[in-house]
Amino acid sequence: MSIEQLRSLRYEHLEPLAIGAGILGTGGGGSPYLNKIFVAEMLKRGGEVPVIPVSELDDDALVASTGGVGAPTVGVERLKQGDELLRALRALEKYTGRKATHMISAEIGGGNSISPIIVALQAGLPVVDGDGMGRAFPEMQMDTFAIYGVHPTPAAVSDIRGHVAVFDEISSGHDLERYVRTLTVQMGGGAGLTGPLMTGADIRRTAVQGTLSFAVRLGEAVIAARKAHSNPVTAASEMSGGQLLMTGKITDVERRFVAGFARGHLKLAGTGAYEGHDYSIDFQNENLVLQDENGTTLCSVPDLICIVDAETAEPISTETLRYGLRVAVIGIPAPQLIATAEALEVVGPAAFGYPEVEYRPLDGVYGGKLAELVSRR
Amino acid sequence: MSIEQLRSLRYEHLEPLAIGAGILGTGGGGSPYLNKIFVAEMLKRGGEVPVIPVSELDDDALVASTGGVGAPTVGVERLKQGDELLRALRALEKYTGRKATHMISAEIGGGNSISPIIVALQAGLPVVDGDGMGRAFPEMQMDTFAIYGVHPTPAAVSDIRGHVAVFDEISSGHDLERYVRTLTVQMGGGAGLTGPLMTGADIRRTAVQGTLSFAVRLGEAVIAARKAHSNPVTAASEMSGGQLLMTGKITDVERRFVAGFARGHLKLAGTGAYEGHDYSIDFQNENLVLQDENGTTLCSVPDLICIVDAETAEPISTETLRYGLRVAVIGIPAPQLIATAEALEVVGPAAFGYPEVEYRPLDGVYGGKLAELVSRR
Repeated sequence: MSIEQLRSLRYEHLEPLAIGAGILGTGGGGSPYLNKIFVAEMLKRGGEVPVIPVSELDDDALVASTGGVGAPTVGVERLKQGDELLRALRALEKYTGRKATHMISAEIGGGNSISPIIVALQAGLPVVDGDGMGRAFPEMQMDTFAIYGVHPTPAAVSDIRGHVAVFDEISSGHDLERYVRTLTVQMGGGAGLTGPLMTGADIRRTAVQGTLSFAVRLGEAVIAARKAHSNPVTAASEMSGGQLLMTGKITDVERRFVAGFARGHLKLAGTGAYEGHDYSIDFQNENLVLQDENGTTLCSVPDLICIVDAETAEPISTETLRYGLRVAVIGIPAPQLIATAEALEVVGPAAFGYPEVEYRPLDGVYGGKLAELVSRR
Repeated sequence: MSIEQLRSLRYEHLEPLAIGAGILGTGGGGSPYLNKIFVAEMLKRGGEVPVIPVSELDDDALVASTGGVGAPTVGVERLKQGDELLRALRALEKYTGRKATHMISAEIGGGNSISPIIVALQAGLPVVDGDGMGRAFPEMQMDTFAIYGVHPTPAAVSDIRGHVAVFDEISSGHDLERYVRTLTVQMGGGAGLTGPLMTGADIRRTAVQGTLSFAVRLGEAVIAARKAHSNPVTAASEMSGGQLLMTGKITDVERRFVAGFARGHLKLAGTGAYEGHDYSIDFQNENLVLQDENGTTLCSVPDLICIVDAETAEPISTETLRYGLRVAVIGIPAPQLIATAEALEVVGPAAFGYPEVEYRPLDGVYGGKLAELVSRR
C-alpha cells in the first residue's frame, strides 16, 4: 500500500477516493458514485490529472474552487448533465476576464472530492491536493477560504439545463449561501458552483492541505483490509487518525427536506461492546452531533462523525440511512484549520443550532498515519 | 399644452410623468414618487436626458432594458440606494464585454418609467421613447421584448447592498422571472434589473413605441384640467383613448404579500351614475379584472384598469388602496402589441389564473389623442 502523496490522479484511484471521500463526507458532500462513474470513462482511456501539492503553487496561480450545491437526496435522484461545473467556470472566467490555472475542491467529503477532477479533465487543468473543509459541511460560508478572509465572490452557478448565474460583490459567504441555496431550490434542487478564484498565496494560507491524497489513501486502507480479511473499520480508524465511537443498529430515521437541506435525526441501538446503550445523531446533510442515551455528547462538529457499514467500512450517506442497517461510527478529529476559535464560530455546534453542546475535541490527529508520513518527507 | 413627442426629458416633465406613468401603472410598476425625488435633484440643475424615438434608432444601437423588480409594497417601505440599476448595467457590460448606447424602460407604468432615466443620467446615455409593456405587468416574461422572441438573458440584478447577480443562458423568461423573483425576496424584496441588451432592430420590432411621450402628455392633461377647474378624470380618459368605467368608494381591501407579489382583492360601492351597484377588482401588483355585482367582467388584462382619485385623477397604486377612498376607474385599451393572440397567451386573463374570463377589448385606441397626432406628423 502506497502512503505517498498523490502526484497524479488515475483510474485506479477512483474507487479508493470514492470510499475515502465518502467517509470524510460524514453523510454529505453528495454521492461520490455518480461523479465517479462520470469520470471513470475519461480516466479509463489512460487519462490522468496532475495533482499539485499546495506548497508547490506559484503565488500568482489562479485556483478555482468548485463543487455541487444542493441536498444530497436530490443529487441521488437527479442525474447530472456533467458540464454544470465547467459552464460555471467558463461564466466566471467570462465575467472576470481571467483564466483559472488550477482547480480545487470546495469540500473533500463525498462527491465534491471528484468535482474539481471533472472540471480538470474537461478544461485540461491540474488539481490542487487540498480543499476548503477537510470534510463536508452543508453551507458555503463554512469553508476555510471564507473563514480566513477570501471573498466568496465572484462565483458562478450552473444547473443541468445550462442556466448560469454569476454572483459578485456579495457582502458575506452567508449571504451568498442564502442566495445560491434559494436559487438552487428553484433550479430543481442541485447545481454546480465554481468560485471564488484564488491566488496560490490565498490557497497556501487558507486551504486544508493534502486532503485529496488523504482521501485516496484512506480508501486504499479500507480496500486492503477487505482483501486481507482484517477489519476495515479498524483500518479506517487507524489510517485516518480517528477512533471507533460505537457500533450498532439503526432503529429510527427521521429525515425531511427543508429549505434545500436534508435535515433529520437518527436513532441507534448499540451492539457488541455497545450493547444496551442507545445513541442519536442529528444531521443537516452532514452528521452534526452524536449523543448517548443520557444526552452526553460523544462527538460534535467540527470533528467528523462518520457512519460506515459495520462489516465493510463502506460509508453510509445521509440519503441512504435506513432502519436496520448495522453500522460503525468512527470519529475523526477535525483538521486544525477548522478547529480554531475563528473557525468554531462558523462550524462549531452553536453555528448549527446547538449552543448547549460544548465542542470537546477528539484525541488524535486528522490524517493520522498519512499526516505523520507526509511531514517526515 | 404641448402634444408633440418628447425630444428631451427635463425637470418640468417629471411631475406629469409621475402622474401619467402612475395611471398607466394600473396599481403597480413601483411608486413613481421615490424615483421622481431621486432624479429631480439631478434635473433641477438644468440637466436633461435626450429622448430618442424608436424610429430613429440605428440597427446596431445597443439598448438596455431596465427597471425595479419586487412588490410595490416593499418599494414604498424601503428607500433605494440609487445606483442598483447602474450597477446592474455595469455588471451586464462587464459580463458581455459590450457597452449599452441607450436605455429603455421595461415597463412605462409606475416608477419603472423613471428607472431608465436614472441610469441615463448616471451613465450619460439617451433614453428610448418606448417600453416593453405600454403599462405595467407583474412578471418579467410579460414584456413585448420576450413575447416577440428577444432572449431575456444575459441580464443582471443588483440590490441596495450592492450585491450583483448576472443571469445567462436561462431557457425562458418564465424561468428568469422565477429565479429573479426568488432572489429578490432573499435580497429583501426589491432589486434593480438591467437587461437584456437589444439591438436597435430588436427594439423597432418589439417595443411599444412613444410611451414615454404618452405618459408625460397624459400627466400634463391631468395637471392642465386641475388648473382649469375642469374634470381631470375626463381629461385623463379622453387624452389616453380610454373611458370611465365606474366611480365609487372603496369598501374593502384584502391584500397579502405572496411569493414576492402583492396579491389581493378590492370591493367598491358605486357612486353618482353608478350608485346602487357593487364592483370588485382583483390584483397581482397590477389590477387584473374588474367585475360588477353579477360577476360580469367589465374590463380585464391586457386592457388597463386604472384607479384614480375621483376628484384629482391622481393615480392610486396597489399599496395605497384603502377603505373609504373615493375613486374613478378608467379603462384604457391595451396597445396592439400586447393584445395579439401571441401576447394574450402571456398577458391575457388565463395567464393570470382567470381562464373563465374572456378578454373583450375595450373600444378606443391606446394613446388616444397623442397616437392620432403622432401618426399625422
